[in-house]
Amino acid sequence: MLKELRRAIIGQPLESAKIAHERFSVPKGLAILSSDALSSVAYAGEEILHVLVPVIGLLSFNFLTPISIAIIFLLFIVSFSFRQIITAYPRTSGGAYIVAKENLGTLAGLIAGAALLFDYLLTVAVSISAGVAALTSAYHAAIPHRVSIALIVITFLILMNLRGIRESATFFSYPTYGFILGMFILITWGSLKLFINGTIFSPVPVQTGNNINLSNIALVWIILRAFSSGCTALTGIEAVSDAVPNFKEPEGRNAKRVLALLALLLFILFGGLTLLTRALHVVPTENMTVISQVALKIFGPGFFFYLFQASTGLILLLAANTAFAGFPLLASLMARDKYLPRYLGLRGDKLVFSNGVILLGLLAALLIVIFDGITTRLIPLYAVGVFTAFTVAQSGMVKRWYSLKETGWRRKMFINGIGAVVTGIVTIVVAITKFEHGAWIVMIIIPTMVSIFLTIHKHYQDIRVELDFDNYLNRELVRHKIIVPIASLTNVVANTVDYGKTLSDDIKAVHVSTDSAITEKLQIKWAIWNPGVELLVLNSPFRSVFEPLIEYILKVEDSKSDDEVITVLIPEFVTTKWWHRFLHNQTGLILQNALVIRSNVIVTTVPYHLKK
Amino acid sequence: MLKELRRAIIGQPLESAKIAHERFSVPKGLAILSSDALSSVAYAGEEILHVLVPVIGLLSFNFLTPISIAIIFLLFIVSFSFRQIITAYPRTSGGAYIVAKENLGTLAGLIAGAALLFDYLLTVAVSISAGVAALTSAYHAAIPHRVSIALIVITFLILMNLRGIRESATFFSYPTYGFILGMFILITWGSLKLFINGTIFSPVPVQTGNNINLSNIALVWIILRAFSSGCTALTGIEAVSDAVPNFKEPEGRNAKRVLALLALLLFILFGGLTLLTRALHVVPTENMTVISQVALKIFGPGFFFYLFQASTGLILLLAANTAFAGFPLLASLMARDKYLPRYLGLRGDKLVFSNGVILLGLLAALLIVIFDGITTRLIPLYAVGVFTAFTVAQSGMVKRWYSLKETGWRRKMFINGIGAVVTGIVTIVVAITKFEHGAWIVMIIIPTMVSIFLTIHKHYQDIRVELDFDNYLNRELVRHKIIVPIASLTNVVANTVDYGKTLSDDIKAVHVSTDSAITEKLQIKWAIWNPGVELLVLNSPFRSVFEPLIEYILKVEDSKSDDEVITVLIPEFVTTKWWHRFLHNQTGLILQNALVIRSNVIVTTVPYHLKK
Repeated sequence: MLKELRRAIIGQPLESAKIAHERFSVPKGLAILSSDALSSVAYAGEEILHVLVPVIGLLSFNFLTPISIAIIFLLFIVSFSFRQIITAYPRTSGGAYIVAKENLGTLAGLIAGAALLFDYLLTVAVSISAGVAALTSAYHAAIPHRVSIALIVITFLILMNLRGIRESATFFSYPTYGFILGMFILITWGSLKLFINGTIFSPVPVQTGNNINLSNIALVWIILRAFSSGCTALTGIEAVSDAVPNFKEPEGRNAKRVLALLALLLFILFGGLTLLTRALHVVPTENMTVISQVALKIFGPGFFFYLFQASTGLILLLAANTAFAGFPLLASLMARDKYLPRYLGLRGDKLVFSNGVILLGLLAALLIVIFDGITTRLIPLYAVGVFTAFTVAQSGMVKRWYSLKETGWRRKMFINGIGAVVTGIVTIVVAITKFEHGAWIVMIIIPTMVSIFLTIHKHYQDIRVELDFDNYLNRELVRHKIIVPIASLTNVVANTVDYGKTLSDDIKAVHVSTDSAITEKLQIKWAIWNPGVELLVLNSPFRSVFEPLIEYILKVEDSKSDDEVITVLIPEFVTTKWWHRFLHNQTGLILQNALVIRSNVIVTTVPYHLKK
Repeated sequence: MLKELRRAIIGQPLESAKIAHERFSVPKGLAILSSDALSSVAYAGEEILHVLVPVIGLLSFNFLTPISIAIIFLLFIVSFSFRQIITAYPRTSGGAYIVAKENLGTLAGLIAGAALLFDYLLTVAVSISAGVAALTSAYHAAIPHRVSIALIVITFLILMNLRGIRESATFFSYPTYGFILGMFILITWGSLKLFINGTIFSPVPVQTGNNINLSNIALVWIILRAFSSGCTALTGIEAVSDAVPNFKEPEGRNAKRVLALLALLLFILFGGLTLLTRALHVVPTENMTVISQVALKIFGPGFFFYLFQASTGLILLLAANTAFAGFPLLASLMARDKYLPRYLGLRGDKLVFSNGVILLGLLAALLIVIFDGITTRLIPLYAVGVFTAFTVAQSGMVKRWYSLKETGWRRKMFINGIGAVVTGIVTIVVAITKFEHGAWIVMIIIPTMVSIFLTIHKHYQDIRVELDFDNYLNRELVRHKIIVPIASLTNVVANTVDYGKTLSDDIKAVHVSTDSAITEKLQIKWAIWNPGVELLVLNSPFRSVFEPLIEYILKVEDSKSDDEVITVLIPEFVTTKWWHRFLHNQTGLILQNALVIRSNVIVTTVPYHLKK
């Protein structure tokens, strides 16, 4: 029954041979991988204003344009650097993780890996929070339910992703292109409208009321903080280079096309929206996002506004989906390198790394619950990880060009060098200006993750040596010692004792007595049956059945000789209906587990199937 | 480590022989068993006004006294009836369940049992909600956190009760007597104060503003509804008769003393509080309970008021504790009669029915979350169950006296007959007047519970027959067939194969291939080792390891002869640290479970303990 339900939700399993077919074309790759970067348009500008407006009020709009230009400049530097990574690594994925590991060594790789995994997680949390904000900007009544809505969306994304890559690509193409179209209309229509009524370049109104007295240092600080918030616009741009092997052949060229298109689109949308926000003097409010206020002022409160909100909400939810492609892939690479539990590296029956998908969903849900589903609270955690990964990856590329010294290496090294220096500076700026607002959390989490990776790796290495067959010493086992724990004399027990007798003559039944009346009855029944097997009674004044039994077995184990092997037979009846299990003590299962962990004996379950 | 934590919280285990010592004296019995009934004073009067005030406004106070007198009258009838139950059943507990089962048959017993179990559950939910309301009446800031506070309190009660009966009795004595003292002071001080300023019997002010036009029928209906709400004052009075065997010897006489004291106290406290409420014209508000408003008016907003609120809150939380004594005891009796899962009948290492304690706590937490921790919403569910149990128990006693015809049977039958008729009428009144407000839920739940009891009972009966040793047919087992599933060739696998060879020569290793490269490497290694055991390879295009393996084993099972027995050996390495388990696929465990449920083969785990 469970199996059928699973099939209905996840779909039929796919054969391993189908892996190659589950890949992106350029338009589909853009749909899947661009949504993260493009959708950040919906909150990046707002986050800049969130920092500026409370401190310098309407003067903020004077700084909005220069900050946005700095971010767009950064966008082009980063995307040129990533182009070179795609050229250098056309067939491997993992982006920053692989680049750093190959060129700068394991530790740098693990730092980049940790930063990226954390970044994917925040992509899900931030995008879903912002997407729900798009919804609640249109329907204020939904505001108190934002966390529940976010959790429902996460569940939905997990299920879609467990169904498989290609199906989700088709499904998710429409909203991405819908959002791009909607933004184009908004920007064109809005610019025209403002141009006609002559307000498109209207000066910022002079601040009235309380004057702002900020020292120059404080002003620089607040501008840097605003810039740091705006840098979240760049998150997601690395998704393309991390997912190169997910593209149709030729992977590298297709990926580069998608990256170029993405940078161009991001420039147009982010720039255009900044222009409108500035002209309309929109400031963040609690109930409505900045982008929704712009749309409301341009489109008016009609059908177009609601359609635009829906498309913003959808692309943000899909942005979360980008991470559902990237996180499991990166986790699987790290699992294969033995830095993460091995099962993160196994493809499920839809060829998806199912465990990674589920893990990401659960962690993102946790983050949303902790931060109450509010985008602004999550933002300070976001950019540090991304820019750390950027910096490590670009530095790795610099090292690579220097070592290889292939044609044009100086030019290539220069491009990645600029990338490394600029993203390095941004990382430091973000870490310092956002420290007290949450960046400190990242500075604890990333080193913790790295040390977990190393611990896991050490464990797998240790085990590999211990399990190595080359060290195997053939033992001569001759004599079997059998112990059968019993509670009463039933068919199940008799069946088990009979099985035990076929294994060895050295067999003992052991009963733990918690009630002397029951024990006496058992002894009489046993004597009448007379199976030729000794019945040993252990007393248990504290009513625990396990402790006396396990102590006894450990004692027998201590006194056994080298050629003996002890086998404990556990009689177990199997019920016909699953709920019947709840009506019986799971003694057998618990005992089996305890024995396997605490002793060296062999544990055998002898099942007896009931008919009713 | 887990074990030590458990010891620190729950305490050292107690020997079975100590059962007799863990019993109540009269003062401690009163402390433990009276809190439920006494604490209902804190909400019963308020619930009456909750029904009346919105409909008839200040006129309500004209009806408060007669309704309270009716409830006090009911109290005396019920307690006299229960005295006779204690006399008749001095050594058994279970109250209504046992009385109904013995005298009216199984079905009546199960109905009473279901009603009582549900009532205990509501005692916890209602008392904790009302206790938290006492807290929030003093500290309004805590109002939004009432559900969280209630859940913390439930956790605390579960832990206290897992520690054992006597310890909790000592611990809980102070607050019960504190509350009784506090109420005495409130009533005495308040009466004097009101007597001196001459307002103690002041007439109800004439209603101004909108006149009330109610037909006589509507007025009767509203008064009956108010009476039904007030009947919650009587809940908990049965706790004494249900817990007779928990008393020190002579159990019956001690229990009766406690019951008499309880009825007297309830009369004084409920009556006194009604008098004050009426004189002060207190009506329920959203932020403050009625009893807290009375205390505030009498004591003023000083230390005494806060002390009184604390004692009200505490006794209500302890009232919940009454159910933690009663519910597990009743559940254990029903489990021994095989109407509930058997493990509800086992005493834990502190001699407490631990599973019942935990189950009650979880269900109550669920109820509080569903009803948002608001007392008034829970009340309609409360009284129906209690009065159903009362009615069934009193009817059972009538039947008993009629059958036994011992000395004075007519008088005894008359007392219980009055009890049965009166509580029966009250049950019907409550069920009808509260139907739409929640009593319908009880009318669905109680029959559902009864049918679950019967289903469980049938399952245990079926199994008893099937497991009965008298039907055992001795089978001759001669030949062993061994199957060892393997993923690779390691020490663990080699160890398992060697063990298997000592059991039988008919042994096969089976490998499920999901990756042909790995399979080829395994085959070469196997050939080099050459253990004299065939290596069978099964292909799995869908990457599932379990399905092909289980299908193969089922096929082998189908083709085996009668004297053969199939044993599957599962190689399993045991890690040294518990968290290492998360780094490995739990393949062995899953396979073992699947095989035990789906096939008839014997499953053996061959452990291999790692050193690191």
